[in-house]
Amino acid sequence: MFKVKHLPIDTLREHVITIHQNAVRNGNLGFNPLDRAQVRGVHPVTGDMREVVGVLNFCSDLLVQPDEIGLSEQAFHDLGLPEGCAVTATLATAPESVDLVRAKLRGGRLSRGAFHEILTDICAHRYSRVELTMFVLACALKTLDSVEVVDYTQAMIDTGATLDFGPGPIADKHSVGGVPGNRTTMIVVPIITALGLKMPKTSSRAITSPAGTADTMGVMAEVALSASRLRQIVESTGGCIAWGGAVNLAPADDILITVERPMEVDTEAQMVASILAKKKSVGATHVVIDLPVGRTAKIATADAARELSDLFRVVAARIGVRVEIVISAALGPIGRGIGPRLEALDVMKVLRREPGAPADLREKSLHLAARILEMTDHVAAPYGYATARRVLDSGEALRQFQRIVEAQGARQLPPPALYCETIKSSGEGRISEFDCWEIARIAKLAGAPANVSAGVLLLKNVGDVAARGEPLMEVHAESAMQLEFAREYANTHPDIVQFAAEKADPKPRGEKP
Amino acid sequence: MFKVKHLPIDTLREHVITIHQNAVRNGNLGFNPLDRAQVRGVHPVTGDMREVVGVLNFCSDLLVQPDEIGLSEQAFHDLGLPEGCAVTATLATAPESVDLVRAKLRGGRLSRGAFHEILTDICAHRYSRVELTMFVLACALKTLDSVEVVDYTQAMIDTGATLDFGPGPIADKHSVGGVPGNRTTMIVVPIITALGLKMPKTSSRAITSPAGTADTMGVMAEVALSASRLRQIVESTGGCIAWGGAVNLAPADDILITVERPMEVDTEAQMVASILAKKKSVGATHVVIDLPVGRTAKIATADAARELSDLFRVVAARIGVRVEIVISAALGPIGRGIGPRLEALDVMKVLRREPGAPADLREKSLHLAARILEMTDHVAAPYGYATARRVLDSGEALRQFQRIVEAQGARQLPPPALYCETIKSSGEGRISEFDCWEIARIAKLAGAPANVSAGVLLLKNVGDVAARGEPLMEVHAESAMQLEFAREYANTHPDIVQFAAEKADPKPRGEKP
Repeated sequence: MFKVKHLPIDTLREHVITIHQNAVRNGNLGFNPLDRAQVRGVHPVTGDMREVVGVLNFCSDLLVQPDEIGLSEQAFHDLGLPEGCAVTATLATAPESVDLVRAKLRGGRLSRGAFHEILTDICAHRYSRVELTMFVLACALKTLDSVEVVDYTQAMIDTGATLDFGPGPIADKHSVGGVPGNRTTMIVVPIITALGLKMPKTSSRAITSPAGTADTMGVMAEVALSASRLRQIVESTGGCIAWGGAVNLAPADDILITVERPMEVDTEAQMVASILAKKKSVGATHVVIDLPVGRTAKIATADAARELSDLFRVVAARIGVRVEIVISAALGPIGRGIGPRLEALDVMKVLRREPGAPADLREKSLHLAARILEMTDHVAAPYGYATARRVLDSGEALRQFQRIVEAQGARQLPPPALYCETIKSSGEGRISEFDCWEIARIAKLAGAPANVSAGVLLLKNVGDVAARGEPLMEVHAESAMQLEFAREYANTHPDIVQFAAEKADPKPRGEKP
Repeated sequence: MFKVKHLPIDTLREHVITIHQNAVRNGNLGFNPLDRAQVRGVHPVTGDMREVVGVLNFCSDLLVQPDEIGLSEQAFHDLGLPEGCAVTATLATAPESVDLVRAKLRGGRLSRGAFHEILTDICAHRYSRVELTMFVLACALKTLDSVEVVDYTQAMIDTGATLDFGPGPIADKHSVGGVPGNRTTMIVVPIITALGLKMPKTSSRAITSPAGTADTMGVMAEVALSASRLRQIVESTGGCIAWGGAVNLAPADDILITVERPMEVDTEAQMVASILAKKKSVGATHVVIDLPVGRTAKIATADAARELSDLFRVVAARIGVRVEIVISAALGPIGRGIGPRLEALDVMKVLRREPGAPADLREKSLHLAARILEMTDHVAAPYGYATARRVLDSGEALRQFQRIVEAQGARQLPPPALYCETIKSSGEGRISEFDCWEIARIAKLAGAPANVSAGVLLLKNVGDVAARGEPLMEVHAESAMQLEFAREYANTHPDIVQFAAEKADPKPRGEKP
């Protein structure tokens, strides 16, 4: 028997069980590190048996005594026993559904029932990191056929919560990631909902990026809303811009993402399944999918975008969601700021129709809003764009945004970052491209998204001419160390900016040098 | 800047870096859990820059303060800075060789250079558990052609230490796992080396089994020998029975095994590469490979065994090792005992030619020794078996075993386990098969191999007749709890024993009941 101890280690979704190495040596257990163990005990008040399964780590006195068992944050929470409660620990086997994953790896097919079984175990945190990786790889690399992707999507929906806002139309949108600053949601939702359509938008926090929509919205309003508050807000304002993680929609995806992120392999099926599952779970009937294509964006080629579009269309049709795919070119970030606060400033400039508002963010948002208005038959084609622009230019969108912010709970915009440094151009000419991935990396090195005011502010756009030594961007950071990391990276990676082949030439074309 | 702190957590081969969650909130870092971070600092005495890369965990006060960075056992050791030393932490990217793994996953080929690059990074602990899983899967599932397996094997050899005992012949053997009690090494090595051949045998500790050869030898002698001691012992006695993990032969395998074990997918190429790399690394010229085939063993069918044999032969030829493959039927464990001490007793009974010595262990050992003697041309065929038997029956093998034990450092045989319980037969008839996997599981539940005296002692062999309620096996354990776990498992899994279709009938055939 052991006493259970709470070890406040955030291991994301993996349950970690820590035992003292002497507990093994002294003969209490025959365990090896990374074995799977089951911890079981009786609740002292309710009298019911509780159990949790996790991966074993061994340690010495610092963490636990030989008669204690330490449980990581989530495992302790899931076991639900008070500290000090008596528990036993036994070797546990992998969940049976891992056999289905192995069969898929050997080249089989997975049925809807199989996906359901696997995702149920994943949602219950029964998969170790190794097994999660096996499942993601089994589904990656184009090994799922479209029926499997449909079944996968449906299983993701069925293993999570769903919301119901009536028969609709319920509008939604999703931008496939990889383009920093692409915060169109915060402009599209107010436009669409100002016109009386419902748009219960949930977004993710940053996964590999310097800011997700939930991070950017989060600097101005509460975004961690319970399902019931979210429903209330949508009923009263028509829309919301919330963090999806708080609502438990298609939660399997939130777990899989923890291993998907470091893997960086093509997971087209995974992407389609998780996006459409999240949309269907909020009851969306009409969804616009924004696919930015660029050499340094997540989708690199037009061919890849077309293939992905086809899969989106097939799966959406089968789960009863209408989609419209918008493919756009990504030659660099959208807007000027990258990082939660700097992106929020861009959004507000567009909504307030300020002179310096980034035109690319404004135009893209209007375009996506137009597609939603026309596909829901709210506005007849081709008047979607004009309608969206009228709502934005009249200030209706701004007022509607403020209503949503108030309903969610307004927040004071945080102050600018303490440190700021200008990065100068090491080349010259007309800027043809910014490297999305590298710009994101600089912003992350500067501290985004954890430091909401940190990030990058572009001083030049694609199409602008830059002279050697001219300021190109600012790096904002909350500490001198982070400023230095970001600055050093920016200055040692000149490829971040690409110049067009023709050289910038301030002199008239007729003159010879 | 942080102060480095030693966190004695044994995470096996994954470097884990633990930071306080407030270190992020307070704006020192923009990290997410499971991000990869680089920790860097200057050694206060030597003045040189040290660094280590690992996977991030977040925690609260219990483990580290906000100005501290905790490093797991191996990471702290690899960094080599004293506790309290000032370090910085930055986001780190995956090693470049992970791109090669991704390319392989997409269906490419890996060159020898690619394998070398990948294994070098793995040996330096630069791969996270997710990336190790990706690599194992990229190489599993029969996706490597035989040239790739050769290159993989060579890269495993090149990224580890090697021993050189001269031109040879240097004999070696390997038994593919999955058959409990298969401790032939401890009988073959004394026979072969008593005849003047060199046999520097290194073995593994248990990975998924209740005992590896290194565990069983470990109850009677030191097995963690440095390369120089191992060389000394082999020079003086002709052989050794040592733990390979202490000598750093093909160390990549020791790391990959940590994720391979929970995966349980077919990793034929991995198996061949790692076995032959370990053999070549000790300079072996002649190797006998024991492939036990059985429904419940690691190799389930004769077809699988033949396919595996072919791959062994191709790769061995290319790296310059002669192999002979011995395929045998595995209908259950070899010998009577399962668990380090109980297996050691079986070995000693065979070496001492005691009346109750397990015949299967004796015969299999003689057969394997015969193959080695004939393939090295030490004894002309067909006199290998007779020669081996003479050495065993004359007591020469026993005396040679004792010489090796003395040279390695003799140990007192541990006392029997404190608890013992008999498991009775729930069926009746002639025993046709024991389930290797289930027997191993019972022994592990009882505490083996961590508790060296724990395990299972079979009271019946395949071919014996058992009546219902007759004692079938004993479970040995060091605690009442483990005894109960093992006993319960054994009693609730009657399929562990299979009876032949014909019913046992003590009465003469002519009589009717």
